[in-house]
Amino acid sequence: MKIASFSIDGGHRQLGLVEDSGLIALTRHLPGAPADMIALIEAWDTLRPELEALAGTAPDHKLPDVTLHAPLTRPDKIMGIGLNYADHAAEAKMELPEEQLWFSKQATCIADPYGPIQLPKVSDKLDYEAELVFVIGKPIRHASLQQARDAIFGYCVGNDVSVRDWQFKTSQFNLGKSFDSHAPFGPWIVTADSIDPHDLAIRCYVNGEERQSSNTHHFIFDCYDQVAYLSQVMTLLPGDVFFTGTPSGVGAVMQPPKWLADGDVVRVEIDGIGAIENVVRPE
Amino acid sequence: MKIASFSIDGGHRQLGLVEDSGLIALTRHLPGAPADMIALIEAWDTLRPELEALAGTAPDHKLPDVTLHAPLTRPDKIMGIGLNYADHAAEAKMELPEEQLWFSKQATCIADPYGPIQLPKVSDKLDYEAELVFVIGKPIRHASLQQARDAIFGYCVGNDVSVRDWQFKTSQFNLGKSFDSHAPFGPWIVTADSIDPHDLAIRCYVNGEERQSSNTHHFIFDCYDQVAYLSQVMTLLPGDVFFTGTPSGVGAVMQPPKWLADGDVVRVEIDGIGAIENVVRPE
Repeated sequence: MKIASFSIDGGHRQLGLVEDSGLIALTRHLPGAPADMIALIEAWDTLRPELEALAGTAPDHKLPDVTLHAPLTRPDKIMGIGLNYADHAAEAKMELPEEQLWFSKQATCIADPYGPIQLPKVSDKLDYEAELVFVIGKPIRHASLQQARDAIFGYCVGNDVSVRDWQFKTSQFNLGKSFDSHAPFGPWIVTADSIDPHDLAIRCYVNGEERQSSNTHHFIFDCYDQVAYLSQVMTLLPGDVFFTGTPSGVGAVMQPPKWLADGDVVRVEIDGIGAIENVVRPE
Repeated sequence: MKIASFSIDGGHRQLGLVEDSGLIALTRHLPGAPADMIALIEAWDTLRPELEALAGTAPDHKLPDVTLHAPLTRPDKIMGIGLNYADHAAEAKMELPEEQLWFSKQATCIADPYGPIQLPKVSDKLDYEAELVFVIGKPIRHASLQQARDAIFGYCVGNDVSVRDWQFKTSQFNLGKSFDSHAPFGPWIVTADSIDPHDLAIRCYVNGEERQSSNTHHFIFDCYDQVAYLSQVMTLLPGDVFFTGTPSGVGAVMQPPKWLADGDVVRVEIDGIGAIENVVRPE
C-alpha cells in the first residue's frame, strides 16, 4: 500500500490511499480515520484491514489534482547515516566507517515532495543526496534484526540536502544537515510489506542530467542493521524518520564542484516507490 | 518567575508558578490556562500579566508534595554545544572551536529533574556534564544579538549526560549524546527577565563530591551568540531546548576516569535557578 498526506486547493491536510488510478481519501470512506500519519501508524493493526478493503475502490481524486505533502511533519526524530555506500565514501575521500555514523536533521528541515528547497542566505555550497528513507511503525528498543524488520512501517524517497561548508565548519555535520527545508521526502509512504528495501534502483537528476545512479543493495549497513543499531541507544517511536545514506555522484566532489543554484530542479527517483522533485529557491 | 511542570500522586501533568512558599497551580486560578508548556510559551504575551497577578497568592501545594517533571517533553529540537568553556576544551585535549560546534539530543533523552538516568546495557562509560539550558520563546530566524536575547523564554539546570565510548565511535557525537533519559533538566524554567544568564555559578556533585565548579561568564559563545548563530541555519521555535556546554571536571578526563555507576547520585546546581538530582539506575 501507498499512503500519502495531501490537500486540495490549500485546504486541510488529509491522508489518502494511492492507487494507479488516483487517490482514495481515507476520511471520506472511514469515518474516524486519523488525519495525522503518526496516529494512523499507531493504529495500523486496527486500520490495515479497513484500508486493504478500500483498495480498488474508485478513486476520489486524480493525483495531478492534489498537492502532496511530506508524509510526516513533526516526527520525534529525524536522523541520517553518513557514508553508507562504499562508492560515496570513496569519492568523499573518507574511510569506510566500521561503526554506523549518525547525524541529526530537524523537523524544521521537512519539505514537501514537490515543494521548494531553500538556497541559504549564508552559503552557496548547496548539494543533493538521493536517499531511501524509512519510517518506524512500532516503539522499539534493543531490537534483533527480525524485530528491526518488523518495526519498519514503510519507505519513502528522500533528499538529504546538505550545505557543505557548514557541514565541515566543525567536526560535527549537524548544522550543515539542518537548514530549513533540507529534508524533502515522500511522495508517500510505501508500506514495508510491499517492497524489498534492499534491491531498489535509486537515481538523482539535476535539471534532467543524471548525477547519481545506484541500488540499495550496495548499502554497507542495511535498514535492519540500522534499526537494530540505533535501538541499542534510544527508543525508536512510530513516525521516526531515518535517511539511509547516499551513493556516489554528489555535486561537492565534481571537478569543479557543481553546487545547486536558484531555479535548479532536483529529482530523486526510487523504483517501486516513486519520485520527489524540488526546485531550488532563495530563502 | 519560575514555571514548573508537576503532578500529584501520579495524576496528570499541570503547570505551576513556583514561589518560595510553594507552588501555585495555574489551572486552579486561571481557567483555560494551558497544561502544556509549549502552549503556555506561545500564549505568553497574553498570559504573563495574569501570572504576574498570581504571584504572592497563597500556594496550593508545598514543593515536597509534588513530583516535578521536565519542563518540556516533546520539543521540536534539542541540541547541545560542545567545548564552550575554555577549561573543558583544554581538559578534553580538543582545540578551541572557532565556530560553534553543535550536536543533537533526542526527545527520548528527556528525564525528570529528580528522575533516574539510565546506565546503558551497551556501555559503562557514563559521564555527567553540568549545563545551563535555555528554552526558546518565539519563532526566530536570522536573529540579531538583540533579537536573540528577546527570543529566549527562560533558563533551566541541565545535565548533558554522555556515553563517552559511543560519543567517539565515529566522528559524530550524536549517538553518545542520545541515550534514553540522558537529558534531565529543570527543575523549572526561570523566565529570562528574572536572571542574567552570563553570571551564574554552576556546580556538579557526584555522591556529594564536587566535580565541576565554574561560572557561565566563562562561556566562549554566550547564549545570545548561540541563538543568533543557530538562527542562520534553522527556524528556532517556542519550546526548543538548547544545552549550552559544560565546564571542566567531567569524569572521562580524571586519572583514572571516574564513570558513573549504579546508585550514584548526580546533582547539578546553578545559582539563581535551582538544582536537579538524578540517580543512576541500570536500564
